Amino acid sequence: MRVASYTIAARSAWGLVEGDMVSDLTALPGCETVEDAIAMGLGDTLPLPADAPRYRLTDVTYALPITRPGKVLCVGRNYVDHLAEGADATPPKYPGLFMRTLLSLTPHEGPIVRPRASDALDYEGEVCVVIGKPGRDIPAERALEHVFGYTCFNDGSLRDFQSRYKAIVGKNFPSTGGIGPWIVTADEIPDPSALTLETRLNGTVMQHSDTSKMIFDIGAIIAFVSVFTELRPGDLIMTGTPEGVGKARKPPVWMKPGDVVEVEIGGVGVLRNTIVAE
Amino acid sequence: MRVASYTIAARSAWGLVEGDMVSDLTALPGCETVEDAIAMGLGDTLPLPADAPRYRLTDVTYALPITRPGKVLCVGRNYVDHLAEGADATPPKYPGLFMRTLLSLTPHEGPIVRPRASDALDYEGEVCVVIGKPGRDIPAERALEHVFGYTCFNDGSLRDFQSRYKAIVGKNFPSTGGIGPWIVTADEIPDPSALTLETRLNGTVMQHSDTSKMIFDIGAIIAFVSVFTELRPGDLIMTGTPEGVGKARKPPVWMKPGDVVEVEIGGVGVLRNTIVAE
Repeated sequence: MRVASYTIAARSAWGLVEGDMVSDLTALPGCETVEDAIAMGLGDTLPLPADAPRYRLTDVTYALPITRPGKVLCVGRNYVDHLAEGADATPPKYPGLFMRTLLSLTPHEGPIVRPRASDALDYEGEVCVVIGKPGRDIPAERALEHVFGYTCFNDGSLRDFQSRYKAIVGKNFPSTGGIGPWIVTADEIPDPSALTLETRLNGTVMQHSDTSKMIFDIGAIIAFVSVFTELRPGDLIMTGTPEGVGKARKPPVWMKPGDVVEVEIGGVGVLRNTIVAE
Repeated sequence: MRVASYTIAARSAWGLVEGDMVSDLTALPGCETVEDAIAMGLGDTLPLPADAPRYRLTDVTYALPITRPGKVLCVGRNYVDHLAEGADATPPKYPGLFMRTLLSLTPHEGPIVRPRASDALDYEGEVCVVIGKPGRDIPAERALEHVFGYTCFNDGSLRDFQSRYKAIVGKNFPSTGGIGPWIVTADEIPDPSALTLETRLNGTVMQHSDTSKMIFDIGAIIAFVSVFTELRPGDLIMTGTPEGVGKARKPPVWMKPGDVVEVEIGGVGVLRNTIVAE
């Protein structure tokens, strides 16, 4: 199923997307947010009412697919061909992690904000893993049991700040990380290492790859992360971007106000954001 | 004033510490948590009732001073004498930042957990800045206007994981970062660059310094951070540790189950945690 968070009439809600409609399951006891519902067994043991209110998707405003993730962990340098286009082609020995703040995220159809401080705003199409079941010291071969679902992520990066300081600085400007449009549950994605991943800028394909080319696959990433932290329902793990980023082009391609950037994952959906100036 | 969060009879509460008592201000409209109250002007414009319920401090269990911080930003390598005892004595050109997850924190009198995965558990006494007023692009000379108050922090670190991987890995094990006991509001700390900072392990002084020895003072850190993110009420910024850490000793000193570690900041208080095995 496809699970979306949204606002309607200034009220926060979540529900299931079917065709051009989305249901409202916010009234389910203890399930004010989708992360509450995931913790209570959404997609598994949680009974869903058949008669929930429904709205047209065109009448709602998309919200972050997880309203308030407990943590947002991101893997850098995780596709071989992206290493080759960067400054350092040495394969990493372990997943290189950084975190993003909630404020750095922006939903489907929300603006990606180019800050006053920099015009070196780059895209990075990625697969976002949404954690379902809590866990610690999870073996890689059982890691997918802890996944609730998948959504699209655009790890919008200010390249000058990223290289002058650290990833955490270049990747935490407000409303630079697009995420959405919805979460597709894991039962619909039998093999997450066989997903096509494409980024388009104003309709032009800029990145086209698939998740078989990850250096650390999703199971390996979850296993690594769960050694040093406990995974909880609604946690987000961003799995890295393939080749084709704007900074590797000659001349570099930066996203400008008015541009439309899309990240599409096969079987998941299309995340679309428009760039605006701060 | 001193502001504490706590639980009593399995209920979360917060209030003001006076002598050996703590009030309960949780019923203030819109102020379920202390971070709500800070956003509504606690210590500034928020009117407080004179007749709030009061409990003995010995009857409550301390909680994290900010129940659910929007972000926890930590500065590494920020005292000259700590650089000198480490592997790299080159002064940093900018504040080296990493983030901690909420799960990695533990309150005053809560356990610091030594994980199964490592016994290289080290202490790092630090000053924690609690943000009061929101802001972006804050000039250093006005930064202290955005501070709600200060508390003690122990940046508990697994040194083998920190050096083998990255700071984020070694500093995010569950319940390794002690914080508390309470927040002392900024009006009681006229000069945060003149605070003594001491860490004691089983009563022996291991670190003794003062905040005048920071490489980047609190104003400079806030200015740097607010370039790439918006600060919000309840955000936490950890400001780095002075010399005397366990890993720099010969032989190294690691914290073991049963040890008691204290971080004391002059004018703020004493944070105390006992080490337990996972």
